[in-house]
Amino acid sequence: MAKVNIKPLADRVLIEPAAAETTTASGIIIPDTAKEKPQRGTVVAVGPGTKDEPVTVKVGDTVLYGKYAGTELKLEGKDYLIMRESDIFAIV
Amino acid sequence: MAKVNIKPLADRVLIEPAAAETTTASGIIIPDTAKEKPQRGTVVAVGPGTKDEPVTVKVGDTVLYGKYAGTELKLEGKDYLIMRESDIFAIV
Amino acid sequence: MAKVNIKPLADRVLIEPAAAETTTASGIIIPDTAKEKPQRGTVVAVGPGTKDEPVTVKVGDTVLYGKYAGTELKLEGKDYLIMRESDIFAIV
Amino acid sequence: MAKVNIKPLADRVLIEPAAAETTTASGIIIPDTAKEKPQRGTVVAVGPGTKDEPVTVKVGDTVLYGKYAGTELKLEGKDYLIMRESDIFAIV
Amino acid sequence: MAKVNIKPLADRVLIEPAAAETTTASGIIIPDTAKEKPQRGTVVAVGPGTKDEPVTVKVGDTVLYGKYAGTELKLEGKDYLIMRESDIFAIV
Amino acid sequence: MAKVNIKPLADRVLIEPAAAETTTASGIIIPDTAKEKPQRGTVVAVGPGTKDEPVTVKVGDTVLYGKYAGTELKLEGKDYLIMRESDIFAIV
Amino acid sequence: MAKVNIKPLADRVLIEPAAAETTTASGIIIPDTAKEKPQRGTVVAVGPGTKDEPVTVKVGDTVLYGKYAGTELKLEGKDYLIMRESDIFAIV
Repeated sequence: MAKVNIKPLADRVLIEPAAAETTTASGIIIPDTAKEKPQRGTVVAVGPGTKDEPVTVKVGDTVLYGKYAGTELKLEGKDYLIMRESDIFAIV
Repeated sequence: MAKVNIKPLADRVLIEPAAAETTTASGIIIPDTAKEKPQRGTVVAVGPGTKDEPVTVKVGDTVLYGKYAGTELKLEGKDYLIMRESDIFAIV
Repeated sequence: MAKVNIKPLADRVLIEPAAAETTTASGIIIPDTAKEKPQRGTVVAVGPGTKDEPVTVKVGDTVLYGKYAGTELKLEGKDYLIMRESDIFAIV
Repeated sequence: MAKVNIKPLADRVLIEPAAAETTTASGIIIPDTAKEKPQRGTVVAVGPGTKDEPVTVKVGDTVLYGKYAGTELKLEGKDYLIMRESDIFAIV
Repeated sequence: MAKVNIKPLADRVLIEPAAAETTTASGIIIPDTAKEKPQRGTVVAVGPGTKDEPVTVKVGDTVLYGKYAGTELKLEGKDYLIMRESDIFAIV
Repeated sequence: MAKVNIKPLADRVLIEPAAAETTTASGIIIPDTAKEKPQRGTVVAVGPGTKDEPVTVKVGDTVLYGKYAGTELKLEGKDYLIMRESDIFAIV
Repeated sequence: MAKVNIKPLADRVLIEPAAAETTTASGIIIPDTAKEKPQRGTVVAVGPGTKDEPVTVKVGDTVLYGKYAGTELKLEGKDYLIMRESDIFAIV
């Protein structure tokens, strides 16, 4: 898990998506467009929450989220997702 | 009911869908696309609920839910559905 | 009214729709697609209600509801409708 | 005003629409499709109201409502409209 | 301002629209479809308001409202508009 | 700033838009359709506000608002805009 | 960071977008339409907040926001964005 200097606002959570597997069981490399976007990632930073929306995940948690959740952000050359905690389904 | 290591957030519930019957009364195997998606499943994990949305189903409950409810998740090779408890109609 | 072993969640109500009349006054059998869907049914099971949505109908009440209200459910070979109480217009 | 045995739920009101005039001043009978739907009717039954939506009209009130308000119901061979009180504009 | 026997419900207001000018400065009569609908009218009756929506305009006030605000009502042969007070912009 | 005899309702604000510049730096007169609608104006009258929406701008304030905010009103031959305070971005 | 004389209303924040890079690594100047709009900017002014929406960013903060967030404003020849704080993702 990378360290990033960022403070999400409100109930937002910054997530480092898990790398999608680029090799199938038979060792064939899948071209980029066929890869399913990862739905699993690691919490890198969390906002303070709001009165109505407290944040319950913690930095380091591995979380599951929807395929189209959040907004992509590039920070220091790495791709992250920032989303509201309500877009996260579960901690695994 | 399989055991899975997952903690749903808020009022979310993880459900293991009941297997759709793949053989008709006459023993003919129905091809995959003709199978109706199961609407019955077993609760495998429940979130802590929220102030406004307490969770009332329990692990082990058999529940009924809408055909298009929830999001499909694959965990350790098995298919699950994760949905908000408000998407569950009833316990049977 | 059939007995079914089901516990609706929240403000949901299980209804056994009244059979649509399949014979006209003159005794002619109407083919299936011409039958108007019943809008009258009997309450078979009720949920516990919620803080904001208490349930006021009781098992055994005959109720009127909109043509497209609720979700169809098949339980032990019979067809039911499950809907929120707010979809029910009146007790008759 | 007909008597009907019906208990509307929540803030719903049962209305017997005023008959549309079927004869013009000159005595010509207007064919059915040219008749404007009545927007005036008599309150026949009222629900108990809810905490947020108390019912203020009373049985016997003549009310005005929008052309497309409510749902048509046939009870003992007569046509009624059932609508939320918020769909009623005024008492006349 | 005409007197009408009507009690608007909730936060509704009955308005008698100001007559649109049918003659231009040069005295030419404008055909009906070219007339702009009046946006100015006189309050004829007001509802009791609701807890959340008190009514602040009074009978006799001249008010401004949007072109498409309200519903047209004909009472004793005259045209009125009935609208929620929130559709009224200002008293002039 | 013109004086107008008008009392906006609730959280509404009457604004006199600043005149759009009709001459470019080079002195060429821009035809009417090419002029950008002004987004800057002067507050001419304010409503009393509501419990949830207090009004914070004052008569005389120069304000910025969105291109499509508000409704155009002509009062005594002059064009104004009436909008909710929430459509105003800032005081300059 | 430029100084501007502006008071955003409610929970609005004025942001000076960071300049988009106009030269690629290889030194080729990218024509204007190919430039990605900046998603990073500096807070220049903040509103007082509202009871429900307090403002937590401060003047001088570098913030991240969505590509299509806010409204463009030109003040004294410079381009700014004005947006609600809820459109800001994080402070970096």
